[in-house]
Amino acid sequence: LRELLASWCDSDELDVILTTGGTGFSPRDVTPEATQAVIERPAPGLAEAMRAASLRFTSHAMLSRATAGIRRRTLIINLPGSPKGAVENLQVVLPALPHAVQLLQESSQAEAGHTI
Amino acid sequence: LRELLASWCDSDELDVILTTGGTGFSPRDVTPEATQAVIERPAPGLAEAMRAASLRFTSHAMLSRATAGIRRRTLIINLPGSPKGAVENLQVVLPALPHAVQLLQESSQAEAGHTI
Amino acid sequence: LRELLASWCDSDELDVILTTGGTGFSPRDVTPEATQAVIERPAPGLAEAMRAASLRFTSHAMLSRATAGIRRRTLIINLPGSPKGAVENLQVVLPALPHAVQLLQESSQAEAGHTI
Repeated sequence: LRELLASWCDSDELDVILTTGGTGFSPRDVTPEATQAVIERPAPGLAEAMRAASLRFTSHAMLSRATAGIRRRTLIINLPGSPKGAVENLQVVLPALPHAVQLLQESSQAEAGHTI
Repeated sequence: LRELLASWCDSDELDVILTTGGTGFSPRDVTPEATQAVIERPAPGLAEAMRAASLRFTSHAMLSRATAGIRRRTLIINLPGSPKGAVENLQVVLPALPHAVQLLQESSQAEAGHTI
Repeated sequence: LRELLASWCDSDELDVILTTGGTGFSPRDVTPEATQAVIERPAPGLAEAMRAASLRFTSHAMLSRATAGIRRRTLIINLPGSPKGAVENLQVVLPALPHAVQLLQESSQAEAGHTI
């Protein structure tokens, strides 16, 4: 999974990669670890917002280990494995995605004239 | 503390380890660092939920550096040092713990038939 | 930026360092990475509280990658680059800062009589 995510990001052809599943507590749930291994810049606010929204419905939401982050110009977001949970979580981040993608695509020229 | 936490987790006999204290800003507060050093898979949602709940009572809650995560099949959760705060925080995560422990104990056989 | 932050912290003369800007998604936004590289003890609750508060006004708040943490006895907090956002976020953490600074300044003598 780690190599697949990295190669997809490095192709510079994808704006956002959504993973589903593998974000829980069972021994096989290692999607967040694979994501952490390939991202260069974490985006913790996306996972926080998804968990905070889900927490209004169920206390089990606090068990989501979902993470999010940026590699090159691609944003990776972990969604839960249940279809219902995945849709709910996607709806939480959806309003921010257009702006996110726009920022990720800012040209190198714009970067040159900017200091941190 | 780091070695103690690791040896307890590796004994495969504990489902959940609750630490109390050492989660603040004073120079001696290093429980989260010891926890981070031994966990294999972070569980950020538990600490986020505890802080969000405490934040309704006091702005000082945002100073809690508590963390949580999984080593092998044991969940480690940091609680604050004050008895009142520790009980309040434990009550926040308590409803999710039975499900957490159940997932951690899923058999290796179940893992074998599963893809991430 | 990384070296500047580190040298300021190591001078033992600053209680709190507030950075502004560089916390977003554009390729030039690397302030959180510089901060992470120099802090010794993360303080995730401050960034969580700022994002949760801003999220009430705009879903774009979840795109803030701001981080916070402690190096020696100095607290570093990332604020967003927009003046409005920076002031709003500062107001969120302001009530907790006096206590934070007080804890950071606890003497080594106090440490000696304390176990984690």
